[in-house]
Amino acid sequence: MSEPLRLGIAGLGTVGVGVVRIIRQQAALLEARTGRKITISAVSARSKDKDRGVPLSDYGWEDDPVALAKRDDVDVFVELMGGDDGPAKDATEAAIAAGKDVVTANKAMLAIHGQALAEAAEAAGRVIRYEAAVAGGIPVMKALTEGLAGNDISRVMGVMNGTCNYILTQMQATRQGYNALFAEADKLGYLEADPNLDVGGIDAGHKLALLASVAFGTQVNFDGVELEGIQKITLEDIDAADDMGYRIKLLGVAQMTGRGLEQRMSPCLVPSTSPLGQLEGGTNMVVIEGDAVGQIVLRGAGAGEGPTASAVMSDVIDIARGLRLPTFGQPATTLTTARAALAAVPAPYYLRMQLVDKPGALAKVAAVLGDAGVSIDRMRQYGHQDTAAPVLIVTHKTTRTALDEALAGMDKSVVQGEPVAIRIEEVD
Amino acid sequence: MSEPLRLGIAGLGTVGVGVVRIIRQQAALLEARTGRKITISAVSARSKDKDRGVPLSDYGWEDDPVALAKRDDVDVFVELMGGDDGPAKDATEAAIAAGKDVVTANKAMLAIHGQALAEAAEAAGRVIRYEAAVAGGIPVMKALTEGLAGNDISRVMGVMNGTCNYILTQMQATRQGYNALFAEADKLGYLEADPNLDVGGIDAGHKLALLASVAFGTQVNFDGVELEGIQKITLEDIDAADDMGYRIKLLGVAQMTGRGLEQRMSPCLVPSTSPLGQLEGGTNMVVIEGDAVGQIVLRGAGAGEGPTASAVMSDVIDIARGLRLPTFGQPATTLTTARAALAAVPAPYYLRMQLVDKPGALAKVAAVLGDAGVSIDRMRQYGHQDTAAPVLIVTHKTTRTALDEALAGMDKSVVQGEPVAIRIEEVD
Repeated sequence: MSEPLRLGIAGLGTVGVGVVRIIRQQAALLEARTGRKITISAVSARSKDKDRGVPLSDYGWEDDPVALAKRDDVDVFVELMGGDDGPAKDATEAAIAAGKDVVTANKAMLAIHGQALAEAAEAAGRVIRYEAAVAGGIPVMKALTEGLAGNDISRVMGVMNGTCNYILTQMQATRQGYNALFAEADKLGYLEADPNLDVGGIDAGHKLALLASVAFGTQVNFDGVELEGIQKITLEDIDAADDMGYRIKLLGVAQMTGRGLEQRMSPCLVPSTSPLGQLEGGTNMVVIEGDAVGQIVLRGAGAGEGPTASAVMSDVIDIARGLRLPTFGQPATTLTTARAALAAVPAPYYLRMQLVDKPGALAKVAAVLGDAGVSIDRMRQYGHQDTAAPVLIVTHKTTRTALDEALAGMDKSVVQGEPVAIRIEEVD
Repeated sequence: MSEPLRLGIAGLGTVGVGVVRIIRQQAALLEARTGRKITISAVSARSKDKDRGVPLSDYGWEDDPVALAKRDDVDVFVELMGGDDGPAKDATEAAIAAGKDVVTANKAMLAIHGQALAEAAEAAGRVIRYEAAVAGGIPVMKALTEGLAGNDISRVMGVMNGTCNYILTQMQATRQGYNALFAEADKLGYLEADPNLDVGGIDAGHKLALLASVAFGTQVNFDGVELEGIQKITLEDIDAADDMGYRIKLLGVAQMTGRGLEQRMSPCLVPSTSPLGQLEGGTNMVVIEGDAVGQIVLRGAGAGEGPTASAVMSDVIDIARGLRLPTFGQPATTLTTARAALAAVPAPYYLRMQLVDKPGALAKVAAVLGDAGVSIDRMRQYGHQDTAAPVLIVTHKTTRTALDEALAGMDKSVVQGEPVAIRIEEVD
């Protein structure tokens, strides 16, 4: 029997409480699986006296997470405070400097400071683990870093913000518009304090940047993620997509192209019959494509006490078992810096525009698209509303550049307002 | 840079060739990810001179896999011959005795001899890895053993025989009966030499026994798997199930009950809208339910050169990286022996029987069911055929014992032939 593995847990919100609960309730199971006891030496949070539903009096208390990170009786610093900077980063750095391993659920911190933190940890012979930072309970970092490590990864995709998927699937199910569902999600407590983290795609973009780093052996580069939120998606788009056999998802896509690393987090159309298309509600899904394995799909809860604590515990258990890997799967100093390629891979697009009801209007639109080299695969014109009629177009594969050129050149006398363009991601 | 990791590969069928191909083509990637070279010292197969599409002249050759397993220049013995006994087992034992780690894709050998092999390996300080043995390219052993190790697992389910799922989904898609699709699968080369391994559920049963061992910390017990094949499933069953919102799958289910470990590999109805219900064709799916994480679904190719080689390589890479765990996640000597519980958990059932067309017939069936304590949830009677009409019944939850008692007590003057009973597995 080895020595106990002693944790210091900073942050006692939903996830921290979940971790405490698993360690208390599953002590025997954890000991059977790791061959040692997993104990909590001390915890830290904003308020000491708050009743969190789990007994904390057995553990030491630190007001300052940095002090917790440095304690002699802590082997692993478990950072569950959140925030890309400030106390979370200070305490993580302090833990590494003090020779502790780190387990964190902090996607923002790692998406922005991951390279520097990984280099510091590896120089100190310590590990940073973050299964809980990406897609909640789904063991996707482990699948990608270890389970599929024999593959040259061609593409990683994911629906990794449950709130956005909830809003989009509820729009279709309840026939309500984006604003009504946004308000409902807010009322249900599904939104971050800054809702743009959710509906703007930032939170999911952080996760995508972490996946891309491991998949392609590149330094994590959140600034290279092309971000677009779901705020402009209308019920009309959802219905039109459905009509043509698609669903609209806030989809993250990372792929290495001849022109650099493409990372996108944006609304996309995916086939209704694909696993991504069939994903309803708040559940997360990650799709990994490798040259040998083909397509692997992983699905599960992306948030919540139990799922996220499960992911934190898998990292803790790995450390308890002596399973140690560099933060991004290979030494941080060997990660390359890839050029960011914006929408480099051609794709079909869905277009929606309001066409003025006059002769030759459609011909003009078709001509502008044709001049930019964008060819039309399918087109639908719906019933008139006042003086303009919605027209939906699915293009053949085209580059975003060509498409943007065409849209910029649309004749304002025939097209009312701004055309909407949504990429169609080709996936089985 | 560490020393190279040197493999000896026994078996050069589809999977063996796939492994050789990855090692040759992805040498740089593998070295970047593991920090060392992965090399092949020697190989072994039945015929030395066969052209397998990959160059083998760089490697030593052994006619005898046991000799390969013992070679001084082999660190890891990669067993890809198959067969639960004979050369595969002899060579695996020889490898362990000679102090080698073992990677295998051999589900039959481990489902039957896994406990003894694991104990021998652990006594010798060696590991046995077998990601490729279960659900092909899906990294499910890793997900269960490591990624979800913080969970008390309540149930593991899987569609893990692509041939059966192909036959079942093609029956529905093409309106052909079981025999026609079986013949087609045979012609396409989808069937094992002994087709009962596929359609009888044996192959998938081996996989289930391995999953159950890790999930519940029990000694692998293939004899405790209740097996039922898909041979009796008719197009009529598939249509009736569809009509009531279900799909029929050859589904493996393992769960720990108050009466022991229940392991079943049998046709089941699952909701059409569930991920399992939506699984078409030869793809595999494993569903894991844990107390903290909830439901995790993993989906991917269950067979084929690339996917299976990908899984073998993940084990090789783990060994190259120094990630070492006991065969079943915890020391083999600590695994418990669970009593086998046959269909201990009550479930609703789908029943199909031919009812003779005379007054009171249905009332008699209902009375027999009621006497055995089996209550009816839904019932459908279809158009007459000759003197008898098919009747479909969905029961409320009942035990298999009560149901069997009811079916045995059916009045032969009103029910023609043998009633068909298929369990409805409750899953989201």
